[in-house]
Amino acid sequence: MPNQLSSRHLALSGNLDGQSLDALLVTHLPNITYLTGLRASAGMVLVARKELHLVIDSRYLSVASALMETDSAPTGLTIVPVDQSYEESVGNLITEMGYSRIGVEAEWMSLRQWNWLERRFKTGVQTFFPVEGIVEAGRVVKDTDEIACFRVAGRLIASAIDPIIELIQTGRKELDIAAGIDLILATKGFEDRAFSTIVASGPNSALPHARPSDRLISDGDLVLLDFGGVYGGYCVDVSRTVCVGPVNEQSRRFYSAVLEAQERAIAEVAPGVVASKVDDVARSVLAKRGFPEAFGHGTGHGLGLEIHEAPRVGRKGQPGCDVILEPGMVFTVEPGLYVPGVGGVRIEDDVLVTERGSEVLTRPAV
Amino acid sequence: MPNQLSSRHLALSGNLDGQSLDALLVTHLPNITYLTGLRASAGMVLVARKELHLVIDSRYLSVASALMETDSAPTGLTIVPVDQSYEESVGNLITEMGYSRIGVEAEWMSLRQWNWLERRFKTGVQTFFPVEGIVEAGRVVKDTDEIACFRVAGRLIASAIDPIIELIQTGRKELDIAAGIDLILATKGFEDRAFSTIVASGPNSALPHARPSDRLISDGDLVLLDFGGVYGGYCVDVSRTVCVGPVNEQSRRFYSAVLEAQERAIAEVAPGVVASKVDDVARSVLAKRGFPEAFGHGTGHGLGLEIHEAPRVGRKGQPGCDVILEPGMVFTVEPGLYVPGVGGVRIEDDVLVTERGSEVLTRPAV
Repeated sequence: MPNQLSSRHLALSGNLDGQSLDALLVTHLPNITYLTGLRASAGMVLVARKELHLVIDSRYLSVASALMETDSAPTGLTIVPVDQSYEESVGNLITEMGYSRIGVEAEWMSLRQWNWLERRFKTGVQTFFPVEGIVEAGRVVKDTDEIACFRVAGRLIASAIDPIIELIQTGRKELDIAAGIDLILATKGFEDRAFSTIVASGPNSALPHARPSDRLISDGDLVLLDFGGVYGGYCVDVSRTVCVGPVNEQSRRFYSAVLEAQERAIAEVAPGVVASKVDDVARSVLAKRGFPEAFGHGTGHGLGLEIHEAPRVGRKGQPGCDVILEPGMVFTVEPGLYVPGVGGVRIEDDVLVTERGSEVLTRPAV
Repeated sequence: MPNQLSSRHLALSGNLDGQSLDALLVTHLPNITYLTGLRASAGMVLVARKELHLVIDSRYLSVASALMETDSAPTGLTIVPVDQSYEESVGNLITEMGYSRIGVEAEWMSLRQWNWLERRFKTGVQTFFPVEGIVEAGRVVKDTDEIACFRVAGRLIASAIDPIIELIQTGRKELDIAAGIDLILATKGFEDRAFSTIVASGPNSALPHARPSDRLISDGDLVLLDFGGVYGGYCVDVSRTVCVGPVNEQSRRFYSAVLEAQERAIAEVAPGVVASKVDDVARSVLAKRGFPEAFGHGTGHGLGLEIHEAPRVGRKGQPGCDVILEPGMVFTVEPGLYVPGVGGVRIEDDVLVTERGSEVLTRPAV
């Protein structure tokens, strides 16, 4: 049986075949990680039907070589060290291999790189085709290795939630709480944060993308926390909102509306359901609870090697939201409610689509 | 007197004039921050000779509007809220304004965006020109606001070095030390890390881009730390290498060679000197000390709104390294020495080129 990376290559080969491409030049780093297992800050992969070439500079050469000697290395992978520049090395490789119809990742190739290729191969037999989402099409449904990784990551972050909430105390600074969250995530075993931690208190909680500030937590505040960790290369992402001191009626109304919206949206998740339906359910609950305009963002986003990837769970008609859910998809469900100048609430968990419905990844093991 | 952001626009206008462009479509986020002061995860700026248009989606609309009401807002800036998509909004704006010769940032525009523009304006009078480094040309020499910010950031990180070094103790895990470093940086007032903190001990220290691992620090280890913070949007970056327990002769040789290389390289920094000369000085010291092959990376990189920007301080002949140093440039000086399987040393500080020579930013106030 081929290992997981070889299976990914095999699936991609079928896709190249379908588009009559000899090869695809992969320039998006998460796609490179997906195909080779290597996590680096630079690199390119030229993927052909039978073989892959990892073009990599001296900084990552020893890590890449070691990786290729393990059992999980994809078959047919060769390492091409960068000589002068990535462009030169890839150009020479393309010439050498004799590929003639080559796809490039239009979203992840700069105009500069494209112009370079056009000049370099002006007189060659090679033709380049901008394509979109070919590797991403494979990434949207997670394979067994990825799901195993998500289950561990989800439980890890779930176990961090209680200690994180204990950090919130009257008189503490948002920035200090954010630093405390990062420390807890690191202690739990996350390799990195998935994004800059958000701690937004009082009126700041009404800004969906607030940065932590010098503001001190005070009684009556809603405090919105949004934090994520990277484990084995995969991102998990959780939000919680806490009320400090005596809870007022307004905060209670906000919170219970968002909680119901989230629970109902999660209950909607199942194979065959269109992603925008999940968004619609959350939005309808909030509207019915009296907040028809307070939820400005989408209900969720896919998770994986990137913190934002497919599927997108937003309003009907928005790009990417007409995807039909399939087992193996992983995304956040995070409805929110924001009242400018007053405050906001967001509750976010990560779900895996299963054969029968869904599994919430970010809950503690029972 | 125009404020700093207006001065930046004015300088850029001259550049557009020189290239006979009516406008430049800025898609690189740090360039957008440089021109408008706004820090967002999305946005575009269409810069013309007399006016700027900030195209921004609903998430950042209130922050952008507030910013534009301050004294530091650039004159002639209007905010254009995104309607359906960034592309649509920018397309309509270009048509409406009647610009005909429009530059695009070739390094920071995807092939997908370029193809979109070409289709959208197929029948229009507009012509698009891929250009490179136009905004970056202004960013390479820091202005007074930026230098003031760097001086504060440099002293802040300098004050973090001693407490950070105290974290290194026999038996501690690399990952825990990294988390401790991040906490100290946050406590000192940095808004964010400038990159993922590196803690590399023993043989790991021989990998210039190691990630912190589960490895426990043990006596005799070289421990290489590389950490950076973001303050007021600007990045500072420091490396230190520490020997744990009794220092052996080899570690002493490594360390003193790198220290001399760094000191000599810093002493070389002055206006009129070519950047590659600074690299050459560091490299020569290491060669003379018996390590002609152990220094694989460049001596330094520019700092600013990005952690890696111009000027590049590397070997003669490498792209970007023939730049002549000018007062106001800020970059790292970080020679290193790496012996695979054994260990490595890197020492890094940030310097500002001054009228007479240089100022090391990452040293405590005297």
